[in-house]
Amino acid sequence: MSTPPSGIFIENVMPSADDGRYPAKGVAGSPCEVTADIFRDGHGVLAATVLWRKASGKKLREAPMTLVDNDRWIGQFPLEENTRYVFTVEAWTDHYASWLHDFDKKVRAGAATPAELASDLLEGVQLVEQAATRAKGAARKRLKALLDQLRSEPDATRAHALAYDEELHALVAAASERLDLVRREPMLELVADRERAEFSTWYELFPRSQATVPGRHGTLREAALRLPELRDMGFDVVYLPPIHPIGHAFRKGRNNSLTAAPEDPGSPWAIGSPDGGHTAIEPALGTIADFAHFVDTASRLGLEVALDFAIQASPDHPWVKQHPQWFRHRPDGSIKYAENPPKKYQDIYPINFDNEDWEGLWAALHDALLFWIGHGVKIFRVDNPHTKPLPFWRWLIQRIRERHPEVIFLSEAFTRPKMMKALAKVGFSQSYTYFTWRNTGEELIEYLTELTSPEMLACFRPNFFANTPDILPAILQTGGRPAFVQRLVLAATLSPSYGIYSGFELCENEPVPGTEEYLHSEKYELKHRDFDAPGNIRELIARVNAIRRAHPALQRLDGLRFYQTDNPNLLLYRKASRDGEDQLLIAVNLDPVNPHHGTGFVPLDDLGIPPDGRFEVEDLLTGAAWTWGDNNYIRLDPGSMPVHILCVRRVVT
Amino acid sequence: MSTPPSGIFIENVMPSADDGRYPAKGVAGSPCEVTADIFRDGHGVLAATVLWRKASGKKLREAPMTLVDNDRWIGQFPLEENTRYVFTVEAWTDHYASWLHDFDKKVRAGAATPAELASDLLEGVQLVEQAATRAKGAARKRLKALLDQLRSEPDATRAHALAYDEELHALVAAASERLDLVRREPMLELVADRERAEFSTWYELFPRSQATVPGRHGTLREAALRLPELRDMGFDVVYLPPIHPIGHAFRKGRNNSLTAAPEDPGSPWAIGSPDGGHTAIEPALGTIADFAHFVDTASRLGLEVALDFAIQASPDHPWVKQHPQWFRHRPDGSIKYAENPPKKYQDIYPINFDNEDWEGLWAALHDALLFWIGHGVKIFRVDNPHTKPLPFWRWLIQRIRERHPEVIFLSEAFTRPKMMKALAKVGFSQSYTYFTWRNTGEELIEYLTELTSPEMLACFRPNFFANTPDILPAILQTGGRPAFVQRLVLAATLSPSYGIYSGFELCENEPVPGTEEYLHSEKYELKHRDFDAPGNIRELIARVNAIRRAHPALQRLDGLRFYQTDNPNLLLYRKASRDGEDQLLIAVNLDPVNPHHGTGFVPLDDLGIPPDGRFEVEDLLTGAAWTWGDNNYIRLDPGSMPVHILCVRRVVT
Repeated sequence: MSTPPSGIFIENVMPSADDGRYPAKGVAGSPCEVTADIFRDGHGVLAATVLWRKASGKKLREAPMTLVDNDRWIGQFPLEENTRYVFTVEAWTDHYASWLHDFDKKVRAGAATPAELASDLLEGVQLVEQAATRAKGAARKRLKALLDQLRSEPDATRAHALAYDEELHALVAAASERLDLVRREPMLELVADRERAEFSTWYELFPRSQATVPGRHGTLREAALRLPELRDMGFDVVYLPPIHPIGHAFRKGRNNSLTAAPEDPGSPWAIGSPDGGHTAIEPALGTIADFAHFVDTASRLGLEVALDFAIQASPDHPWVKQHPQWFRHRPDGSIKYAENPPKKYQDIYPINFDNEDWEGLWAALHDALLFWIGHGVKIFRVDNPHTKPLPFWRWLIQRIRERHPEVIFLSEAFTRPKMMKALAKVGFSQSYTYFTWRNTGEELIEYLTELTSPEMLACFRPNFFANTPDILPAILQTGGRPAFVQRLVLAATLSPSYGIYSGFELCENEPVPGTEEYLHSEKYELKHRDFDAPGNIRELIARVNAIRRAHPALQRLDGLRFYQTDNPNLLLYRKASRDGEDQLLIAVNLDPVNPHHGTGFVPLDDLGIPPDGRFEVEDLLTGAAWTWGDNNYIRLDPGSMPVHILCVRRVVT
Repeated sequence: MSTPPSGIFIENVMPSADDGRYPAKGVAGSPCEVTADIFRDGHGVLAATVLWRKASGKKLREAPMTLVDNDRWIGQFPLEENTRYVFTVEAWTDHYASWLHDFDKKVRAGAATPAELASDLLEGVQLVEQAATRAKGAARKRLKALLDQLRSEPDATRAHALAYDEELHALVAAASERLDLVRREPMLELVADRERAEFSTWYELFPRSQATVPGRHGTLREAALRLPELRDMGFDVVYLPPIHPIGHAFRKGRNNSLTAAPEDPGSPWAIGSPDGGHTAIEPALGTIADFAHFVDTASRLGLEVALDFAIQASPDHPWVKQHPQWFRHRPDGSIKYAENPPKKYQDIYPINFDNEDWEGLWAALHDALLFWIGHGVKIFRVDNPHTKPLPFWRWLIQRIRERHPEVIFLSEAFTRPKMMKALAKVGFSQSYTYFTWRNTGEELIEYLTELTSPEMLACFRPNFFANTPDILPAILQTGGRPAFVQRLVLAATLSPSYGIYSGFELCENEPVPGTEEYLHSEKYELKHRDFDAPGNIRELIARVNAIRRAHPALQRLDGLRFYQTDNPNLLLYRKASRDGEDQLLIAVNLDPVNPHHGTGFVPLDDLGIPPDGRFEVEDLLTGAAWTWGDNNYIRLDPGSMPVHILCVRRVVT
């Protein structure tokens, strides 16, 4: 006898990217929360589980799901290791629960005759009997005992109570056939990264600018001397622009001028000279031993080193002679430099991925990464990945992570949204974002709403850099110190990963007029900075980063809600930890010039506070405390402190 | 020599339901508009096509796609027949266009030397040469001629113009290899329905209430006499509640009372008596010949007959004896009637789909539909499909439509949103909706925004019934005639398919107090109505339906935009035809009691009208004409006409 096809539908299983075509992302040590739409015809009560295993494992394990509302179910499974997982969802009809639901409804409605109730009860008894027949050992014995009680109970009300017994229901459910069980196919993939892929605090510096003596070319040894200061400011990733030998041909001079003076160091992105290419170190910076010292020092301080991975070459790169086919050629056979008319980058040769030896090229790039991984580097900031083929990234990242699942890739793509998301889907752990250009409340709310949509949460992890050597945003140019404070707090509280580039703490903000480029850009010259200069915000940075470390609410992208204010210059939002125990309210005056005040409206229900309740908040930046309710006066003055980071302390009784 | 994997990504191809797991829906005679996200690394210029064929055919045909913006592409293919299609999207790099783009940029930037331009031009010439080598016949000859011109042109500016020649580009594109071509797999399915699946105007009546003499049981012959009136009102579907023999056991009396008087006709949904079941006709209504007459009469008037398909039985249905296993049984072997405690439906036995002879049951239901299809019925309104298994519907609808693609199924599901959508995905052509319970502007905007989202547009076609024998909405109970006018116009202009149930035109609105049930419900008793009674809105209905037939903007769900007003009682929206030629502005006073006035804001750009432009509108209901601009005074009085249906006539110069 055949059974009819199951009427249960399972849809929209998350986390998943592009309907399972790409793995979703999770973090080892945190559970993976799985949601799905599950439903069937009629009123049958469903049961559902998450099934999962490590991709390398065999045995599937299961965890129960529960109905949230509107056919949406939720469950979770633990991500115990930094590895790949597969998971899916199964559902079936719980016939005993279905019977109980109907029986209960009938008993409560009070319109059934005793004979009708007795007949209905008998159906439940039959389900228990079937389960007892299928059960084994102790479960069977216990089921039979409960069955006897149920059978011998003459009173419908008392029988009703017995039928409701949780132990009975659990035993029956465990022993019942899952006749109409459905499993969503195919299973979905998920990569569990280590925690820093999600929660990281970046500081970018040029080692050559870290000389202890002004005017001299700094070394990796000297750069290592700054690491304790970065640790004290609370950073955990120190990111270095390329440290490879810099080409001499067409080297750029100060302010991107076409001719370099003899002492000009050139752009670190013009990679390669007779001293070597992507696996060598610029001699002026030191040796591979000096690099090892830098990595070790960082590691002892709890910092990791992120290297730049820029797939391009100076005309002096050894590959130009060894592998001319990896470059683009003019009809006369000469190699093309990079161009973006009218701009010409004569010091840089782009790589031609569409060449006959593409497999050799892919292998060489892979090996360059392996070289640095062998020297302790576990984080790569990838320069302009959107100008290289997506299949290459998919292959490279997957292959590296097969043996080194701990490696993290940050995509430095500032391009169209679908390409940025595609880079995340093919494997990048983190991505640069449009944050630097989102300044108004409306812009920030719209962008963060997009970033926290289910599919973006599943695969795309933003890293909110507040500035970079290429981007000195307009608001920092014109807004001065208050703008730096405001942008720091926005970056550090809206995104679990954020970064600043050296000089941010000094509020450096002199542009090439009419551009977002720094005047006297460090890309083309050495810098010597006094980090103790007046007006620096090092202490504030340290405090913000300490708050981030202490508050799980700031260590994840989700858990964000924007709240209304009656002044568009005041942005108010809540961040909450996964368990809801940690709740922060952050208020930012978005105008770096004028003080603003207004009312911030807090939906108390969101904070688990009863209607009309009041609660204490403490400003983690200043220590000030207030009692808040559902609407609250806020005044923020750029002249003193343009932000609140308020911790919700306790309900006032 | 292997070539590297293509770097082109194609994603989010629409129309598609649940990522292609279910066929999308289209209409034979209208093109299917296909959109996709298509992108690649770098700045290469892409080309893309839609590929399609009939599911039964072999040869793929292609149609070009064009870039809209932000990596979104659009194309279309014709749906010539009422049948199934498959389609997908292909994309590749257009190397000549890529070269031209770069060359053009360089020429315009003006920073290149003549030698640089000559070298770049030579690359383009080489692409033309390659194409000329591959081209055949006349194309080859013409390419060679153009190539000679290009080669012999010494002036860069003139060569630039030659390279831009559209004929040249088209010939090169046609002859070039599509080296990195990518096709999105698997192909997507689409069902092209006949037009009435999308655009239909329904009238529901009980034939037994159409007697020419008050108090007598009406017949199908008498019901046929009303068809010219329905045609005159502009309806094209006449929907009949079940016309099958009605059971006698536990027959319900007036107002759903438990005991029927001898003359009470019973609920038509209590299907089956000794006179037959789902393939028989209630003798009081007439014979199968009378039904044939009804269908023929309708057909001659341009009306179609929709039959109710309710899968349930009265205790007297022949199946109860022939197939007792198709029903649910109590432990004592007796058959269960339908219940929703405290309500009991002793006159109805639900069907048990989970029975051992499920295949026999499915076949019998299939055959019942085939019987009526054989008698000219091409539309079925399916009662409560959400209480029967989704796999059954998928099988049934697919199987029926294999031989009868013209058959239309309307899902009468009022249940949770995901089940309603799932019924559309498994094949229902149209669905009842929550429209009857969406009254405020906010509610209507939110619901229509959901219905016009890309995935809903792809598979779910709403049918906005303004009332049904089961639903007399609160607003009609309290709002009187103006509410009937308002709801009629909302239904008829927001949804291409809508319907009313007999009595709506008389503004019948007496409920069982505290419920949405009609007092003296026609479900349990005969009615005799005077359709010429004062206050009837038959003429208005006729005018609204005539407007629908004349205006393509009202014959599709898409093309809807809500516009702002400064009075929440005034709802203003635009409907546009696919080609944008037909534009209507509809304004509704949502308050059936009070006149309201305010300003309606029209984004002129939407209507293709220049900034600060003015345009003429004509009210298609009253003939009144006004000149409108970007903000417009609107006053709507429920006492006279609470709605405008404005046709945008022409721009005022």
